Amino acid sequence: MTGNERFWAVIPAGGAGTRLWPVSRAGRPKFLHDLTSSGRSLLQQAWDRVQPLAGDRVLVVTGVAHREAVAAQLPDLPADQLLAEPSPRDSMAAIGLAAAVLEARDPEAVLGSFAADQVIHDVDGFVACVSEAVDLAAARELVVTIGIEPTHPATGFGYIRSGDLVDPDGGGTARIVEQFVEKPDAERAAAYLATGRYRWNGGMFVVRARVLLDLLAANHPDLAAGLRAIAADPTRLTELWPDLEKIAIDHAVAEPAADRGVVATVPGTFDWDDVGDFHALAGLLGADSGDGAGGSGAVAVLGDATKVRTLDASGIVVADTDREIAVVGLEDVVVVDTGDALLVTTRARAQDVKKIVEGLKADGRTELV
Amino acid sequence: MTGNERFWAVIPAGGAGTRLWPVSRAGRPKFLHDLTSSGRSLLQQAWDRVQPLAGDRVLVVTGVAHREAVAAQLPDLPADQLLAEPSPRDSMAAIGLAAAVLEARDPEAVLGSFAADQVIHDVDGFVACVSEAVDLAAARELVVTIGIEPTHPATGFGYIRSGDLVDPDGGGTARIVEQFVEKPDAERAAAYLATGRYRWNGGMFVVRARVLLDLLAANHPDLAAGLRAIAADPTRLTELWPDLEKIAIDHAVAEPAADRGVVATVPGTFDWDDVGDFHALAGLLGADSGDGAGGSGAVAVLGDATKVRTLDASGIVVADTDREIAVVGLEDVVVVDTGDALLVTTRARAQDVKKIVEGLKADGRTELV
Repeated sequence: MTGNERFWAVIPAGGAGTRLWPVSRAGRPKFLHDLTSSGRSLLQQAWDRVQPLAGDRVLVVTGVAHREAVAAQLPDLPADQLLAEPSPRDSMAAIGLAAAVLEARDPEAVLGSFAADQVIHDVDGFVACVSEAVDLAAARELVVTIGIEPTHPATGFGYIRSGDLVDPDGGGTARIVEQFVEKPDAERAAAYLATGRYRWNGGMFVVRARVLLDLLAANHPDLAAGLRAIAADPTRLTELWPDLEKIAIDHAVAEPAADRGVVATVPGTFDWDDVGDFHALAGLLGADSGDGAGGSGAVAVLGDATKVRTLDASGIVVADTDREIAVVGLEDVVVVDTGDALLVTTRARAQDVKKIVEGLKADGRTELV
Repeated sequence: MTGNERFWAVIPAGGAGTRLWPVSRAGRPKFLHDLTSSGRSLLQQAWDRVQPLAGDRVLVVTGVAHREAVAAQLPDLPADQLLAEPSPRDSMAAIGLAAAVLEARDPEAVLGSFAADQVIHDVDGFVACVSEAVDLAAARELVVTIGIEPTHPATGFGYIRSGDLVDPDGGGTARIVEQFVEKPDAERAAAYLATGRYRWNGGMFVVRARVLLDLLAANHPDLAAGLRAIAADPTRLTELWPDLEKIAIDHAVAEPAADRGVVATVPGTFDWDDVGDFHALAGLLGADSGDGAGGSGAVAVLGDATKVRTLDASGIVVADTDREIAVVGLEDVVVVDTGDALLVTTRARAQDVKKIVEGLKADGRTELV
């Protein structure tokens, strides 16, 4: 037996990863890539992580364009547990579809949703935290999140403000969530950390299938009804999908549920990164940061490091071709070398990569994005 | 008739152009490349420039490895005017071989030596200055150089210090050369410019063939004799060449001749650049220099500029593949994209490219250098 037999892991495998262009492309997005030199793609790592908790009880939800690639990367995933969205309709429809399919089998099934494009090294810590969340969600009608411990005052993530312990007498670590807050500015983020009450929202939700859909139905009845109708008759997917409301699960369920006091958070004890851009990827791969005064940082290499030569350089090189790459005299540089596109920028400007992708789209260079 | 019928242009086509790696390679050095987007390689431009002066009276001296490439680029060059060195023996042997071949035909022939890897836009100015030098060399037993007007206190070139007019009554512009001086440091270079008496040594020498070889024989009798023996019996080239002294023409002839007061310089009125590194190439192609404080310079592109996208960047991109290149947030950057090697550096570090090439050689990566 693997964990709670009523627990199912749901892996939404979506998102273009635009800020990781030209590695991440619409046709081969971030989650299909091995960004940590582990030999496994982010999707495969997400699969590996939930094995101790869910075994074969995994649903993957992805776009129809990526169904074949996902199936190829996850040969042990049963075909009927790979759900293909006809078109992108944001995270509520994706996770809600999985919830409705599970509810049709077992209304009290507990689902845990874990995005396919994140990096966690401490799998034991992940399993322990999620296990506590599963037990709590099985026992109580709560949406249980995992609150990631902040390592710095990040401005790129949402935060969770926690309150009282859910069970002051029982010894669990879960606390009631008072509020989800949007990505803050740097000053506000620092203030959050100083209180000790804020954690990053890693977008992990553990909740019974019926509870999730009932919470959704309270504020978005048409969306909940549509998802349940598809689960009842999968042949209606193509007919009903295009009219489903396009909304993130945070706005559709998590925030309103927090207002009603029915969201809890288990403090994560494990490392976590969503690898949103090349700055994050450089940090993840151990690039030292130059000090802006000629400091001798190190260059992290994703790919064949024997083909990369550096002199007085720091930052990251992604070597996705068999070419020799030489970098001389640049601190915190980002060099991404792929077969049909080359990006050169800095860690500080990593967010602006999306502007290049927007420019390519505007120019009709769809083969490159 | 084209110019002085006794004038022959000699084009030494040598030098690896290591600091222009990975564009310039041992197998396809700098002079074979079109570095100015003119549609003509530097060698072809050197040929074009001497046409008004020499017509078909052109000798090209190159390494045996490049004979075919040179012949292919210069289809109008008669086969017996393409001299192939069995091995590199520095500039005196190369130019001296051409001088000896000319001397055997006509001892009083005037030769003008102009390297194959330089860039001059003002061809009319070049022709006018060289014409004056040719007339002077034909009339007097002098080595006549062209003194390039400095545009900045360069530390990468040698300088010529000029003295009195050669012919104070005749109206010519030529002056006696008092001294050739080696590449100065920045302070000394600025002091040179302040005097108004110094010009860059562009390595252009105009002199009668016999005069050149007699001057050489005074200090390097074996070298002069060896070159004359090869000219007398070209079948002895392979036998005699390896034992020729390896020395630059500046040290072998120009400097000793200046000490004897038999070198003159005609002040060049034309632009000149030896395109020694990517910093120079960027300037030549019109790259604005960033001011180091976020200034909005422009990126110069050598290659298909429609494939290069930039945002807040200045410097130079050499696009030698059909890949898309994006550069974001880097001032004075150098990006050189070729089929098997990529270089990313800055204009300030352009000289250090040779260290990368040295590293490749040390690692036995001869296919890349």
